[in-house]
Amino acid sequence: MTISPQSVARIGLIGSGWIGAFHAETIAHRIPGATLVGVADPQPGAAERVAGPLTGPLGEPRAYLEAAALIADPEVDGVVISSPAFTHTDLVVAAANAGKSVFVEKPMALTLADADRAIAAAASAGVHLQVGFNRRFARDFAAAREVIAQGGVGTPQLLRSVTRDPGLANPGAVKPWTIFLETLIHDFDTLNWFNAGARPVEVFAMADALVAPEFKSAGLLDTAIVTIRYNNGAIATAEANFSAAYGYDVRGEVFGSAGMVTAGDLHATGMRHYSSAGAQSPTARLNIDLFHQAYTDELVAFADAVRGKAPRRDSQVPSGHDARAALEIALACIASVDEQRPIALGQHS
Amino acid sequence: MTISPQSVARIGLIGSGWIGAFHAETIAHRIPGATLVGVADPQPGAAERVAGPLTGPLGEPRAYLEAAALIADPEVDGVVISSPAFTHTDLVVAAANAGKSVFVEKPMALTLADADRAIAAAASAGVHLQVGFNRRFARDFAAAREVIAQGGVGTPQLLRSVTRDPGLANPGAVKPWTIFLETLIHDFDTLNWFNAGARPVEVFAMADALVAPEFKSAGLLDTAIVTIRYNNGAIATAEANFSAAYGYDVRGEVFGSAGMVTAGDLHATGMRHYSSAGAQSPTARLNIDLFHQAYTDELVAFADAVRGKAPRRDSQVPSGHDARAALEIALACIASVDEQRPIALGQHS
Amino acid sequence: MTISPQSVARIGLIGSGWIGAFHAETIAHRIPGATLVGVADPQPGAAERVAGPLTGPLGEPRAYLEAAALIADPEVDGVVISSPAFTHTDLVVAAANAGKSVFVEKPMALTLADADRAIAAAASAGVHLQVGFNRRFARDFAAAREVIAQGGVGTPQLLRSVTRDPGLANPGAVKPWTIFLETLIHDFDTLNWFNAGARPVEVFAMADALVAPEFKSAGLLDTAIVTIRYNNGAIATAEANFSAAYGYDVRGEVFGSAGMVTAGDLHATGMRHYSSAGAQSPTARLNIDLFHQAYTDELVAFADAVRGKAPRRDSQVPSGHDARAALEIALACIASVDEQRPIALGQHS
Amino acid sequence: MTISPQSVARIGLIGSGWIGAFHAETIAHRIPGATLVGVADPQPGAAERVAGPLTGPLGEPRAYLEAAALIADPEVDGVVISSPAFTHTDLVVAAANAGKSVFVEKPMALTLADADRAIAAAASAGVHLQVGFNRRFARDFAAAREVIAQGGVGTPQLLRSVTRDPGLANPGAVKPWTIFLETLIHDFDTLNWFNAGARPVEVFAMADALVAPEFKSAGLLDTAIVTIRYNNGAIATAEANFSAAYGYDVRGEVFGSAGMVTAGDLHATGMRHYSSAGAQSPTARLNIDLFHQAYTDELVAFADAVRGKAPRRDSQVPSGHDARAALEIALACIASVDEQRPIALGQHS
Repeated sequence: MTISPQSVARIGLIGSGWIGAFHAETIAHRIPGATLVGVADPQPGAAERVAGPLTGPLGEPRAYLEAAALIADPEVDGVVISSPAFTHTDLVVAAANAGKSVFVEKPMALTLADADRAIAAAASAGVHLQVGFNRRFARDFAAAREVIAQGGVGTPQLLRSVTRDPGLANPGAVKPWTIFLETLIHDFDTLNWFNAGARPVEVFAMADALVAPEFKSAGLLDTAIVTIRYNNGAIATAEANFSAAYGYDVRGEVFGSAGMVTAGDLHATGMRHYSSAGAQSPTARLNIDLFHQAYTDELVAFADAVRGKAPRRDSQVPSGHDARAALEIALACIASVDEQRPIALGQHS
Repeated sequence: MTISPQSVARIGLIGSGWIGAFHAETIAHRIPGATLVGVADPQPGAAERVAGPLTGPLGEPRAYLEAAALIADPEVDGVVISSPAFTHTDLVVAAANAGKSVFVEKPMALTLADADRAIAAAASAGVHLQVGFNRRFARDFAAAREVIAQGGVGTPQLLRSVTRDPGLANPGAVKPWTIFLETLIHDFDTLNWFNAGARPVEVFAMADALVAPEFKSAGLLDTAIVTIRYNNGAIATAEANFSAAYGYDVRGEVFGSAGMVTAGDLHATGMRHYSSAGAQSPTARLNIDLFHQAYTDELVAFADAVRGKAPRRDSQVPSGHDARAALEIALACIASVDEQRPIALGQHS
Repeated sequence: MTISPQSVARIGLIGSGWIGAFHAETIAHRIPGATLVGVADPQPGAAERVAGPLTGPLGEPRAYLEAAALIADPEVDGVVISSPAFTHTDLVVAAANAGKSVFVEKPMALTLADADRAIAAAASAGVHLQVGFNRRFARDFAAAREVIAQGGVGTPQLLRSVTRDPGLANPGAVKPWTIFLETLIHDFDTLNWFNAGARPVEVFAMADALVAPEFKSAGLLDTAIVTIRYNNGAIATAEANFSAAYGYDVRGEVFGSAGMVTAGDLHATGMRHYSSAGAQSPTARLNIDLFHQAYTDELVAFADAVRGKAPRRDSQVPSGHDARAALEIALACIASVDEQRPIALGQHS
Repeated sequence: MTISPQSVARIGLIGSGWIGAFHAETIAHRIPGATLVGVADPQPGAAERVAGPLTGPLGEPRAYLEAAALIADPEVDGVVISSPAFTHTDLVVAAANAGKSVFVEKPMALTLADADRAIAAAASAGVHLQVGFNRRFARDFAAAREVIAQGGVGTPQLLRSVTRDPGLANPGAVKPWTIFLETLIHDFDTLNWFNAGARPVEVFAMADALVAPEFKSAGLLDTAIVTIRYNNGAIATAEANFSAAYGYDVRGEVFGSAGMVTAGDLHATGMRHYSSAGAQSPTARLNIDLFHQAYTDELVAFADAVRGKAPRRDSQVPSGHDARAALEIALACIASVDEQRPIALGQHS
């Protein structure tokens, strides 16, 4: 496959769940220079349901039952993987081996060995490997990172990252350790990215099932606070909860020797209403509302990479190594909860 | 020309200045179900410069020197007019007469007679006529309008609309009365839209050249405050200035018997920075930053109309009648400044 | 009467309505170096009702039926006048003639002749004369004034001042022109103070009875927007309404060649609440909540003057001349509404 | 000593350091119904320096070298203790034994045994014992507590309390464990108060000397994050740092099953400035600015208690038991840092 910088990025999507369907629509409609050429989903009819309404000037995206067939399609330049987490690594490896650029939703892997395998496959094939840490592309988080990079907070000393999801529809369907491996992994990446150049060295986690305590015995953890010590001295907290009554709440804060920067806004818009009840305004309810622009821009960066363009800013595009670094913290959290003690990083690699 | 609801909207653009170029990029990249098929500009090479980089799956948009040729092109379903203001009416009429849907940048006309001519042409041809009052599509303004429509402020009593542009590069090139006809016309529409169902009955304007006083003798007015009385009793102010040091500042406020709603946010993002200098954060510098989403969504609504879909919300899409109503206020402002007295609406129609 | 800088300021209060009662409590409890020594009110028992609970270490404040008796009391160093507006000028003159420092609630006078009379009496007696434009002492308004004074907005071009009161309990009791003479007079002073060094030259007012339209025929105006042109080119609006559903709303804004400054916050505290209903927080409901600190600090400044101390910042303490300047605008508003045209200042002096 | 509800509270102050001097001024000037009758400080001349300028209508406060003499003074009804921390318990006990009401700055004690001793002395004497957790009286924190008490956040699940001081003038003078015993003890009380009815059961602390690392070997800890698990499942973090470049930063946040409430505002006033540099506004620089109202209102509550009035809201006034509960967490933090593990509460009592 040859890529010329000016060609259109022909993208195939694997996994047509709700975030997959949203990515499909983004690729079809909102990415200059990208086309959705195919959708793969093992469930009969699922790929068609997503592809049908997204017919573009080049016709309808093809539907596949087998991810392998989509990967093998010579008209697919890049693959977006949004299937269930446990399938990610194998699909990254297969796509990389086929010479395709890869965008994989987080988590890229569930073990460090798998993370290494994915990284190695991409490196060996020389393909672009990007991970779905979309928060890096949110305008306020990106602006915060810039302030940090320009020295606006000095040396980071205290960091915080928060993720609160708007609801827990089906507590019984949540796999054990999801809060660390799939939710807080965003926060771990954000903290690593904000505290660039530093390495986490110690992790302590407290977690519980407070939203749905009746599922705790089945392994549910829906609330957690993690403390992370970095080798530059900075101490960070990451916290998550699966059921925010007011919507989708993602915030970040970095405090250092020269100041503080914050990112994250709970309001849906700049509209404010004042009445006999006081001041009031709507809050953001869905991640695809709150991060609409970020979900678009991460795929703009991916499409640019597929078309042979360099990413606009290297440090913004999350790599396989970034996925591994966040995973290492998530795995330490699991150990910390299991052993009820702080975990030194490195010993669980 | 037959339109089926599922077809792609094939759009031609007239006028390739900077807002025209931005609309072209929006149509080419950010509008589901729309394609940019042509660009017309009388300046040799100008249309090509815009069209070239926007080559899509169906090839490169065609370039025309003559707007008439673009309008006549049978592969053009809808026309977006972003040429200089004085050309707008004739182009609306020509496009309507050719049976094309029309999106025209504000102001649609510079006289009420022209406004009536444009409205009549669209009505007679049965085509969709939409005006570029993009502010209606900004999320916070749209949310404010919803609150008003749902009774959240009760009966409007005091309204305010503000437009401050970030700079006045070439004061000598500003046509007389621009501040009313091209700038505040946005605010007049916003106020009419917020105070839906009411009719402006009296207008008083104070204006001056405070940014570039040396151009006042040549007719420049760069600062203005307009007071408008409506027939439901509400009193509104609209204010404009051509040179805000901090960027692009657009805000609205409606106060009524049950409360107040505000729209408009000066901050570029939700990022906040705190340092020894205090709290600080970047402001929005360009209208295409501040209204990026609004500029997209007004053309999404237009593309939907071209494809035969009804607009999502009738009251949101600005019509030829809305353009005429705003123009009537602008013309009264001119009379008010000339005669230094309040002007009753109706007498200058 | 001799004043030594270290003595306690012995203050007598005239008028024990609700703002009088609040001032009495402020003087008794919150002003270092001041003591409330007497209260005068012509209504039998009224002064006693205020004075009784405010017994201090020196005993209970004396009660008077006659203001003249309080003024004549040799143990009264300074007089605070908070009786009805029409009594203000005569009381200022009487107190000044008795050599007492005078703090008078706004408006100091209802005619320019009376204003001149008050100013002359204070000048002739060499006593301190201060007017109750408390907004100047509100921390955010004072900070805004500082930014302006330091050049932070450059040359003012557009100004705005807003007053919305929380309710109109008894529309029939409101004297004609109250909205200009007693409410917006605050805003006129604020605008003059923000635009220091400039002189208002033209005034246009629109006003109506929108809150209680049934009282319009009796002369009620409860809603108004005033436009003021200054001799430095700046154009200002002042707006008022007597019934804000959400509480007490006072805001200011100054825009100029180098930027903008705003003051005024609708929130009662920094607390914010987020729930399934979205974001919400209480608003300030009463002027004595919103301006608690300002009401205290204006009397701290007065007590300092009584004790022979210079005011901390000359430009902050509103003088008789400031009262006259604000009144001149209020009177022009009345003429403008009467004659339905802009009024040049000077012709109605 | 008999107390009648209407008498003036005669208050003596022990310790004339900077917070003592500030309390003295507050008592002398800002507390209705209170008088400062004496100041004790062992350093010759120190008490006089504070008392001199605070001469009131009853004359100059008396100065003492011996706290015992002040406590024994029959004209002292209540004692405010703001001497160094290690002296607090003995002074509380002495004042209680003398039948005086006691206000003691935090920490009331440095060991649980001392805390018990102070509580027992006050109980045995039947005197009011109040601790200087002023944050409870800050308007936004108090409003947040109200929202929680009314069920506005449902069951608390995640809490956060932050204290960042504006500077670390003399790192060498900071006693070991100050960050837990004197700084974060505020946050521990705030968290306990917000999560009323729950009991902390597990504590984990990470701390370091990041501001002044050269003093770490001498025992300095200037940065800390503490995680606390409560017996209602809620998990809290408390964080502190001794050197915020932007001023004094105190914030709280409580998230629960029904929503979230936040308190704390970094801005000095509601003024906002916009210029070519963007948006900017001053931040609060000193705790006596940020908490001016809270420092006053805690002493208003104390004076009310001295005069025999019940506190306005029982749950707002911090008791000896509250001081003990916060201390228990601080001591667990010390153990956690020493042993580098989570500490179960109870075992270190």
